[in-house]
Amino acid sequence: MFPVVAVDFGGTHIRAAYFPSEEPEPGSQTKLKTLAKEGPDAVIGRIENAIRSVLPSKQEGLRIGIAAPGPLDPFSGKVLSTPNLPGWEGVNLANRISESLDCPVWINNDANLAAVGEWKHGAGRGVNDVLYLTISTGIGGGVITQGKLLLGSSGLAGELGHMKVTPEGPLCGCGQYGHLEAIASGPSITRIARERLKAAEDSNLLDFVNTPEDLNPEILGQAAQEGDPLALSVIQDAGKAIGSHLASLVHAFNPARIVLGGGVSQLGSLLFIPIQQTLEDEILHPAYLRNLKILPAELGDDAGLIGAMVYARQN
Amino acid sequence: MFPVVAVDFGGTHIRAAYFPSEEPEPGSQTKLKTLAKEGPDAVIGRIENAIRSVLPSKQEGLRIGIAAPGPLDPFSGKVLSTPNLPGWEGVNLANRISESLDCPVWINNDANLAAVGEWKHGAGRGVNDVLYLTISTGIGGGVITQGKLLLGSSGLAGELGHMKVTPEGPLCGCGQYGHLEAIASGPSITRIARERLKAAEDSNLLDFVNTPEDLNPEILGQAAQEGDPLALSVIQDAGKAIGSHLASLVHAFNPARIVLGGGVSQLGSLLFIPIQQTLEDEILHPAYLRNLKILPAELGDDAGLIGAMVYARQN
Repeated sequence: MFPVVAVDFGGTHIRAAYFPSEEPEPGSQTKLKTLAKEGPDAVIGRIENAIRSVLPSKQEGLRIGIAAPGPLDPFSGKVLSTPNLPGWEGVNLANRISESLDCPVWINNDANLAAVGEWKHGAGRGVNDVLYLTISTGIGGGVITQGKLLLGSSGLAGELGHMKVTPEGPLCGCGQYGHLEAIASGPSITRIARERLKAAEDSNLLDFVNTPEDLNPEILGQAAQEGDPLALSVIQDAGKAIGSHLASLVHAFNPARIVLGGGVSQLGSLLFIPIQQTLEDEILHPAYLRNLKILPAELGDDAGLIGAMVYARQN
Repeated sequence: MFPVVAVDFGGTHIRAAYFPSEEPEPGSQTKLKTLAKEGPDAVIGRIENAIRSVLPSKQEGLRIGIAAPGPLDPFSGKVLSTPNLPGWEGVNLANRISESLDCPVWINNDANLAAVGEWKHGAGRGVNDVLYLTISTGIGGGVITQGKLLLGSSGLAGELGHMKVTPEGPLCGCGQYGHLEAIASGPSITRIARERLKAAEDSNLLDFVNTPEDLNPEILGQAAQEGDPLALSVIQDAGKAIGSHLASLVHAFNPARIVLGGGVSQLGSLLFIPIQQTLEDEILHPAYLRNLKILPAELGDDAGLIGAMVYARQN
């Protein structure tokens, strides 16, 4: 059993953890600021330092797995475009780390590897067909089919939040229109709440914040718990949109498990009840529901890191 | 190399063909009327007769592959529901044929097996990630990922026409709303043309038919070729709807090939140009397009039969 260092690297933090075995318990771990504005060379230096800092002296057969912001090319190791990481386009992160650490490196996008983590060690364990969505600042996805991470022909599969759910829908962070992300991500839900508040819908939301600009999904959740009709309705609408899209995805993928992570998923039953109800209402045939469970993610912020560990072992 | 009899069985016809080798050239074949109204026992008898009629006397190691209308359970062999075949719900077609012919039988839905056929011997050959859509009376689909037919947890994956593309969209044949099938299948395109004709849009369509009820996609194609503005616009809108949905599917599956079959796909460039253009306009990142080709199906009505042959061999 070879040792693995897993790295989860995003716009704000770099995390690295040493995993001596298949178990999702790290031997040692570290967390640094990314300081993305210093550019790729500085950040890659920090990633290397993070890896070295968690490595014990002996490291025979070491492998490294890296979860990075997508889209990226897991076959070549190149970053393709990174809205949150200026200057990275075309940088071959896998080769750079592989050369300086002198060991094989596998890279994939963070949502795909979070899907792998949840599948092997979280809410998706025990089945071979899993859809994972992380509903947060954006909506990312990852798909396990027949016991394998779905990569597609160039490693770009699984962008389940960037599928059009309404033709004339709002602008998405990616520049397209009407994607699920533009309707049900944290910022999208908050935007819709602000718009409806400005349209003078009945609500006590302004008792919770100083200005509408301070709203966020967590505050909407609190207000909904206390019965605020606008907060309840906005969260329910988001749940319906997610559930409707999940019904479509179930027709395409027929999973046994749908795992929902990310900050917005922490709204809990406020969100999960309309998701489940809408999915059931819009399903093509009850056979799709027979083995299907929709569950909250279990690994929290560790999903990408644990997935990177599993991915480096499996390849 | 074992011999295979492939069967393609639908609401109107039963076809059977004997394939002595992996080549998609049948040794002998037959085609009978289904006469579905006589019920499952009579139809199963006709399927058995069709198989026996194409079998040479010697049949060591024989396997049978059956393409049937979905949804069905390929793991148990049971038909789940068949709008066009009353009385079949729960019938174990695979077991019935297996017992009477005394050989192993594999069954899957016709669109999935057409996808397999096009992938191995048609427009999808040479790549490992293919989306197949058949645009006809309905819109069926099949997905090849990483060189395997995508089955999902209970064999129901690949219903790419039953995904919601517009929330308040028209009623679909399946009973849900806003699916691609409800917008871009043959009957849907025809319905939209009739509605727009009744709304007195500029058109010479009534020069092509006696009454609007006689319209169909083929006639719309003829009128569009002769420059009829309504026919051109209706077909272009269908192409845009298909292209937009394909962009979403490309984000989910990242295929190297999209193969479009079925009667409506025979509208050719009238349909393929807006499909291609819309897909390119709505793609998340140009990397998705780098290896992607959208091609018309090559096997015509034989796709399901050839796919059933390949499927029986591979299992």
